[in-house]
Amino acid sequence: MIDEKILKILRAGGDSYISGEELCRVADVSRAAIWKHVEKLRDEGYEIEASPHLGYRLLSVPDSLIPAEVKWGLKTSVLGRDVISYKKVDSTNTIAYSLAENGSRDGLVVLSEEQTKGKGRLGRSWASPPKGGVYMSCMLKPDITPREIPRITLLAAVAVTEAIRDFTGLPAMIKWPNDVLINDRKVCGILTEMKAEQDGVAFVIVGIGVNVNTSRGQLPAGGSSLKEELKRISRRDSLSRLELVRKMLERLDEEYARLKEDGFAPIIERWRHLSAMLGSRVKVSLHDGGFAGVVHDMDADGSLVVRLESGFLKTVSSGDVTMVR
Amino acid sequence: MIDEKILKILRAGGDSYISGEELCRVADVSRAAIWKHVEKLRDEGYEIEASPHLGYRLLSVPDSLIPAEVKWGLKTSVLGRDVISYKKVDSTNTIAYSLAENGSRDGLVVLSEEQTKGKGRLGRSWASPPKGGVYMSCMLKPDITPREIPRITLLAAVAVTEAIRDFTGLPAMIKWPNDVLINDRKVCGILTEMKAEQDGVAFVIVGIGVNVNTSRGQLPAGGSSLKEELKRISRRDSLSRLELVRKMLERLDEEYARLKEDGFAPIIERWRHLSAMLGSRVKVSLHDGGFAGVVHDMDADGSLVVRLESGFLKTVSSGDVTMVR
Repeated sequence: MIDEKILKILRAGGDSYISGEELCRVADVSRAAIWKHVEKLRDEGYEIEASPHLGYRLLSVPDSLIPAEVKWGLKTSVLGRDVISYKKVDSTNTIAYSLAENGSRDGLVVLSEEQTKGKGRLGRSWASPPKGGVYMSCMLKPDITPREIPRITLLAAVAVTEAIRDFTGLPAMIKWPNDVLINDRKVCGILTEMKAEQDGVAFVIVGIGVNVNTSRGQLPAGGSSLKEELKRISRRDSLSRLELVRKMLERLDEEYARLKEDGFAPIIERWRHLSAMLGSRVKVSLHDGGFAGVVHDMDADGSLVVRLESGFLKTVSSGDVTMVR
Repeated sequence: MIDEKILKILRAGGDSYISGEELCRVADVSRAAIWKHVEKLRDEGYEIEASPHLGYRLLSVPDSLIPAEVKWGLKTSVLGRDVISYKKVDSTNTIAYSLAENGSRDGLVVLSEEQTKGKGRLGRSWASPPKGGVYMSCMLKPDITPREIPRITLLAAVAVTEAIRDFTGLPAMIKWPNDVLINDRKVCGILTEMKAEQDGVAFVIVGIGVNVNTSRGQLPAGGSSLKEELKRISRRDSLSRLELVRKMLERLDEEYARLKEDGFAPIIERWRHLSAMLGSRVKVSLHDGGFAGVVHDMDADGSLVVRLESGFLKTVSSGDVTMVR
């Protein structure tokens, strides 16, 4: 709490120095204590200049996904009311799930700098090397039935894709149901898990993994990162993961509120615009076989509608969909 | 294990006495140890006669839902491979859920003599007084998507209703989606919970509460027990809960295997036969309103299809359905 008070004053000060007396007064601690807390903040990566005569000045904040930084200036009403972050976990989805079972509030966000067992769809893993990625799980309590779960995956895909477009300026696209592509390379994946009864969903965990500054060598084939994709057009340095996390949470918050108000139709409409698949030839693999066709549209539940060669439409709510060139 | 060995020999002996020497030999322990274990079995409710010259004889087994008794003569391949039973728990569903998360095998069965927080549909409670009820949760790992979850509830309702018919000879009926009625009184409820991703269900917990010997005074309005309903036609004593549990597990096991082989169609067919609702006038309450109509059929996902007064059909996958006289 003292750390947060000190940071708040320094941030408010902008480029000007804040005297030690002032810090002592507001944080209500001794000069020695101020010094100790400033040292601690420096250890966390904050650059704080200390001048004997002028006082203290904040030069930069670390790009660490710590709760105080994530919440700083965050404009949301539900998402991120509670934020927990870790250096290293098995899987943020697993932690969020277990916190949800123990009664967390709607909108809980769990972040980690690294995952040792990052989860992907269909029992696959999600490469989650330290430094460079955003590994985030958002816990939601929407008033939906289990059959409507694809809606939440779609909502998240739309929100995250728009946040990535806004953040990078690049034309990110959605590959149904849960990937975000830039230049046909996967930069983000979404994994939705839930606890439910037949009548309703108890909670949903939306896991979002984004390769931000990750180098291509750390990623599986077909994977890329926002930085790698930006390199082709500019020489930008590392991207701010914090800024991206806040943008994603703000977009998710907006969509989540809109879902309650206006239902799912506006999301499908935007998905159509962001879809990398509409009109594409695809192969669909299911555990009991598969088929080929052309992506026709999405139905009201968030399932993919594919036109078979026979001319008939077929609805796909699970399975692997590959685009055929 | 020694208890189980001793019981096995005594059971095999039927009405004849088994000598102490024989018990010692097979269980591979001393005479004193045999005596100690026989005492322990008596504490659990087994009536064992000990004659100084003839040896031991099993007179009766307790109607306790302990694993050894449940498994005795149980003809199943998946359901009940693992059985755990308790004297008193919050909720067998909660325990089964947490065991499932920790990697239990398909077919796990959790039983309790009493539940302090027995769960019903839509956040309601299920009265679970000690002595007289069966409170059982079966954990299944079917290869289905979340939208198919009503199929598992229906499968369980069909299997349990048929087991109750077989056990009591009374015309038990299914009230969609999850209640079993005899003479329009509720004798059994089923609550299905699951953990899932969009692509598939990780596991399903099917909670089954049956009022067997429970007296009407211990049950909420509209509730009854198998014994109460049998009383009207006969003066039968307490019913064997163990026998009912085994019958239910055997029917569930059969239906579960058949679902994998033949799909859901045969279950819908049998549901139609057991349904207390087909052709009935109903009121459907949803959280955002409700409507009235006549039950027309069930769809392939296990949802109820109701014909509205306007003549249109409407599909119901959640909510409260009340029959109107």
